[in-house]
Amino acid sequence: MFAPTHPEIQLADWTRHMSRSVLRQMIAVVSRPGILSFAGGLPDPALFPTQEYAAALTRVLAEDPKALQYSPPFTPLKRHIVQLMAQRGVACTEEQVFLLTGAQQGLYVLSRLLLNPGSDVLLEEVVYTGIQQAIAPSCPNILAVSTDLAHGIEVDEVEAYLLSRTRPAFIYVVPDAHNPLGVSTSLERRQRLVELAAQYNVPIIEDDPYGFLHYGNWQNNGALQVPTANLPPLRALNDSHVFYVGSFSKILAPGLRLGWMIAPEELIPKLTVVKEAADLESSGLTQRAVAAYLDAGHLPGHIAELQGEYGRRRDAMLSALEQYFPATARWTEPKGGMFVWVELAEGVDTRALLDTAVTEQQVAFIPGFAFAVPGHDAHNCLRLNFSTCTPDLITEGIKRLAAVINHS
Amino acid sequence: MFAPTHPEIQLADWTRHMSRSVLRQMIAVVSRPGILSFAGGLPDPALFPTQEYAAALTRVLAEDPKALQYSPPFTPLKRHIVQLMAQRGVACTEEQVFLLTGAQQGLYVLSRLLLNPGSDVLLEEVVYTGIQQAIAPSCPNILAVSTDLAHGIEVDEVEAYLLSRTRPAFIYVVPDAHNPLGVSTSLERRQRLVELAAQYNVPIIEDDPYGFLHYGNWQNNGALQVPTANLPPLRALNDSHVFYVGSFSKILAPGLRLGWMIAPEELIPKLTVVKEAADLESSGLTQRAVAAYLDAGHLPGHIAELQGEYGRRRDAMLSALEQYFPATARWTEPKGGMFVWVELAEGVDTRALLDTAVTEQQVAFIPGFAFAVPGHDAHNCLRLNFSTCTPDLITEGIKRLAAVINHS
Repeated sequence: MFAPTHPEIQLADWTRHMSRSVLRQMIAVVSRPGILSFAGGLPDPALFPTQEYAAALTRVLAEDPKALQYSPPFTPLKRHIVQLMAQRGVACTEEQVFLLTGAQQGLYVLSRLLLNPGSDVLLEEVVYTGIQQAIAPSCPNILAVSTDLAHGIEVDEVEAYLLSRTRPAFIYVVPDAHNPLGVSTSLERRQRLVELAAQYNVPIIEDDPYGFLHYGNWQNNGALQVPTANLPPLRALNDSHVFYVGSFSKILAPGLRLGWMIAPEELIPKLTVVKEAADLESSGLTQRAVAAYLDAGHLPGHIAELQGEYGRRRDAMLSALEQYFPATARWTEPKGGMFVWVELAEGVDTRALLDTAVTEQQVAFIPGFAFAVPGHDAHNCLRLNFSTCTPDLITEGIKRLAAVINHS
Repeated sequence: MFAPTHPEIQLADWTRHMSRSVLRQMIAVVSRPGILSFAGGLPDPALFPTQEYAAALTRVLAEDPKALQYSPPFTPLKRHIVQLMAQRGVACTEEQVFLLTGAQQGLYVLSRLLLNPGSDVLLEEVVYTGIQQAIAPSCPNILAVSTDLAHGIEVDEVEAYLLSRTRPAFIYVVPDAHNPLGVSTSLERRQRLVELAAQYNVPIIEDDPYGFLHYGNWQNNGALQVPTANLPPLRALNDSHVFYVGSFSKILAPGLRLGWMIAPEELIPKLTVVKEAADLESSGLTQRAVAAYLDAGHLPGHIAELQGEYGRRRDAMLSALEQYFPATARWTEPKGGMFVWVELAEGVDTRALLDTAVTEQQVAFIPGFAFAVPGHDAHNCLRLNFSTCTPDLITEGIKRLAAVINHS
């Protein structure tokens, strides 16, 4: 008999550099009773269409004897998604719709489909943490580009990489209501991005969780905004190099875990194999219940309600920032989504600021560094969420936060 | 402007060798109306506890305002799982329970946690296809061992590998009611397996979808079997080197997509990071609804009903095989689960046999090669499912299949 060679089970090499998402850790820390929090990224559960969804579930379970069985992707849901995409200005077919167990699965499956170990990936310096987690198992080399807070991703920097270096496996972007930056990419930059993608044959992952939540431009006139349509998604400008990832989490509810991808049809069989390996299939019951909810025609009214309510909260936050924040601060004016990004004076460290804010004023946010790719820090920046608090609380919280900043 | 360098998007290298699961393809082909099919691996939807689950969903949606929100793993469900595991003879704590979006996600997450590119993995020559899909992205080197159809995995061959070669990243086994082989591993082999795992510090993935579906030994006395408890799972014999993967798919319904893992507690944070990257979290609504179903005390009676009905179907199939199949055939006598494995005379090719069976007798099965790892073929073997047909249809189908074999 040999003695055990190691007391511990040996893990894959990439897990050595693994750490719990800083973002999730921070949200957990500041989610204490009594804290007025702009830290999370959650939709407001008071706005979930719970009764209508419960009715849809009940109907499906009563009428479809196979609702709980294994099942292939549910075609009627794909048809609804084709119609939803048309509202976003995207022409696609059922055959291009790929159903997902939430949008994060789209980022993950595409990372496995497109990345070799050590592949180059092009990301913004400040970027959604979920894409960083999705690519981590491939130990990628990150090509980072900066973002203009008024016009979006710096396409000149993208082009410079493509001109000078190995072609990245993909470019990841959130063109509408960027998380965490709140910016929407300008039409001119969208057009240049898809041209570059086609020219250099580099695919783009277009992550669009907030595309249906648009509130129009901020005008500070106190009037309710009339939501105007967003600019066209990248997928509306190019159907060969863009993988569009959509989500029901923000327009229905995250607890469903249901999303979708629009992908080139010839890649659907390969995506299917990658997804089957990961979780066999997405819940057939959830697919049917969401289709039944959509059949009943509830969604347009529900989205209008979300646009109205989240729009008022966006307005309350921007108004309070103007009123209370110091002149040295600048921030994005999101046309949609859930987040405002704030840059404070260069000397401010928002990690230290968070400690003070929580301790002295019981108000929380996420410091910018939580979203920065390695080598960047966004130390003087912070992300504010406006979707979970009512306008009154938003005004109160921004006032408190300003007090902390002004006394720091 | 440069011309596009390639007309096609470049995919990860591993995808070159990717193909749609042979098993899924075959099931799709033979799932035609009019075919009496033993091909699938599905539970019978007529036995799903649909009303009770619908009631649980309704209750949760009415009473829990955060049922549709993002949420951490639901502790009351973990508590139920600890109790379920105790029924399998496994002592574990809530802190060792890791919730999954179906058991397949367990195989996938563990593959990412444990495998480097090209790692050695120890599998049986004939093995569940889902594990082959889960490991594929890591391009593993498969160490294949054979299986005794009466006593399970050949532990001598496992030991020979451990003595002579690089330590595999893990050993994958289905000790109870193996899919596709139908065999349950003997107690002596279970004990030797976990001793080897500890001695050589090699983790075991114990896949246990059928552990609650045990029907006792086949006795061919025509009497309803009294289900006897299965042998202890590997996790009951070793808590340091066994990752136990469980599933609600076979005891409740697959459309839920909910499973669990029992893992060493110190690895739960790393498993959490791997899973978050893949799909953020499992549906909070489904977690709560299953917990509510379990709260209501429905499960023990439901499992007893499944054991009775599936037991009768197992008996009908074994009885018909004895009556109709040729003397050259041998088959497993499963104590549980959903499958019988048949070996025909060496000269038979079950792929050709399937064509004849479908065309001439409208009966279907899965040829053995669909489950074989590369370099093996099980060309004269076939898998029969007994969970989806009633006893009468099973007898009829086996009769038809015997006619095809006897005339081939």
